[in-house]
Amino acid sequence: MAICRTQDLLEIAANALARAGASEGAAQAAARALVAADEQGMSSHGVSRIPLYAAHLRNGRVIGAAKPVIIREKPAAILIDAQLGMAYEACALAIRECISRAHDNGIAFAAICNTNHNGMTSYHLEPVAAAGMVGIAWGNAPAAMNAWGGTRPLFGTNPIAAIFPRRDADPLVIDLSLSEVAKGKLLVALREGRKIPEGWAVDKHGKPTTDPQAGIDGSMLPMGGVKGAMLALMVEILSTALIGSAFSFENDSFFSETGGQMRLGQGFLVIDPGALAGSAPFLDRIEVLAAAMLADDDVRLPGARRFALRDEARNNGIKLPDALYAELRALAGMTGD
Amino acid sequence: MAICRTQDLLEIAANALARAGASEGAAQAAARALVAADEQGMSSHGVSRIPLYAAHLRNGRVIGAAKPVIIREKPAAILIDAQLGMAYEACALAIRECISRAHDNGIAFAAICNTNHNGMTSYHLEPVAAAGMVGIAWGNAPAAMNAWGGTRPLFGTNPIAAIFPRRDADPLVIDLSLSEVAKGKLLVALREGRKIPEGWAVDKHGKPTTDPQAGIDGSMLPMGGVKGAMLALMVEILSTALIGSAFSFENDSFFSETGGQMRLGQGFLVIDPGALAGSAPFLDRIEVLAAAMLADDDVRLPGARRFALRDEARNNGIKLPDALYAELRALAGMTGD
Repeated sequence: MAICRTQDLLEIAANALARAGASEGAAQAAARALVAADEQGMSSHGVSRIPLYAAHLRNGRVIGAAKPVIIREKPAAILIDAQLGMAYEACALAIRECISRAHDNGIAFAAICNTNHNGMTSYHLEPVAAAGMVGIAWGNAPAAMNAWGGTRPLFGTNPIAAIFPRRDADPLVIDLSLSEVAKGKLLVALREGRKIPEGWAVDKHGKPTTDPQAGIDGSMLPMGGVKGAMLALMVEILSTALIGSAFSFENDSFFSETGGQMRLGQGFLVIDPGALAGSAPFLDRIEVLAAAMLADDDVRLPGARRFALRDEARNNGIKLPDALYAELRALAGMTGD
Repeated sequence: MAICRTQDLLEIAANALARAGASEGAAQAAARALVAADEQGMSSHGVSRIPLYAAHLRNGRVIGAAKPVIIREKPAAILIDAQLGMAYEACALAIRECISRAHDNGIAFAAICNTNHNGMTSYHLEPVAAAGMVGIAWGNAPAAMNAWGGTRPLFGTNPIAAIFPRRDADPLVIDLSLSEVAKGKLLVALREGRKIPEGWAVDKHGKPTTDPQAGIDGSMLPMGGVKGAMLALMVEILSTALIGSAFSFENDSFFSETGGQMRLGQGFLVIDPGALAGSAPFLDRIEVLAAAMLADDDVRLPGARRFALRDEARNNGIKLPDALYAELRALAGMTGD
């Protein structure tokens, strides 16, 4: 394993993306988000994505020079067009606008259309908690789950995230996708020659399967059965029809180099506790809830693990597989030591 | 079974509540919501609740004369205090305010504190769809589910509902609670001497159980495991700390006559597609999605069943158990035929 300081990895990541064609702003915003995911132990949403991002920037699936633009505006709701570029700069713009507009209006919503993979959903909400506000985020993704009763993938695994600030402590962070498990678990089972439990996937006829290959050729199941399928539909509509983005089933996979340009959708909602319970009473009550949760020995506050890992990574560096580290340095034009 | 016309049942329901002490407005709003639930086949959230509501009105757990009041106000977010009264009039006020404010601001949020059971969550959103807007609703409930890893109930089954209008058709309606199953299923298993499947409940030590009595004495499990538990926590905070209501674990059961006054919380979010994708493009795209879903024979659009039942009930009447019908008529002061 290579061990990399945050600052060095930020530079490598930004250089790799810029050399593939990302604008300075897009490369910097993406690097910050990806390195933050690695710091928090979410390496699947970290710099390991850069080789594919770079390929997409080079072959035009993602437009490196795109600048996000606000195309619709009401006092408490805006629509940002990411113009087929990387998502991260658009997400940062959405959050800045939401915090300011929620301060004035009590709540604000920013949606992003014509956008791309935005990594770890909760990352974008961290400035919301820093501003003492509550944030919720969601988005769609290339289709991987069928509609309840259906036979083919229609919805993405469609993440939902939320953040709640605490007084003098890291915020509570919720971040989950609506599939029962990530598709990566099927790939692992296939490689290891194991069956998968029922409830993870269906085959291409929509029938339950324990064969990982049949699941990969079929479709992932939602968490929580029909209820999860309904939540996935809810996130799907909020991320697409409502805001002018393409449905999950109209987007090609993130995970292949080739394919059409992505037109995903993301939404961010920011609520100011100052407009409702009041900021101080809100923070007081969050501590009452946290204490009630922690009264049970085996309960952990959501986000606690990721922030512990982040602190550890900032002190001792981020571990990366040697091959990935070498590939990123090569993409960044840094050779030798 | 008694068969009752909608109009007659509305009158019986409103009279029963008014005679127990509900104000005219509270009684009418509650009657409309409860009868709508019965029309839609959700009898567990219908007029079957009235005997207990009436008991709560008579013994002061619920304040019949309470009037909901807007106590905090920003352009796009308001806080309504239900003043320990019935929930339904406050919900109607919240929705009226949200529709008007979303029209002006793109989005609007109304929260209700110091409120009570509000029946079928999605009912409140029906006027949102009629106004061509998207609605989301949630709320907390007396504690029934433990925090993930915990041993005692902390969160309510905390429903989430959403509504999406369609062009010339009934809206898409999503309405679910975040427990794997309703507690009523444990009561049925107990009565029938059956075990319950793993995944429904834990005993009072937080251990998985297949014994319905141990589950009733313990705590319900969330849908979708830890992910459902995280969603329940999210709804919990949005319904309580954010808006000045009491946590689920601070509220006594709905289902006993006696107990403290309820101080639940509910939230309503309304988004105007006209501020984002545009109203006509939004409706066009909803039809594209509906067609993609219905291309699979076994997929049903969410809400289809409830509106079919409603139409059937409006044509042929609502079926009620004879004993309930007699009890309601007695509560309404109507005796004989």
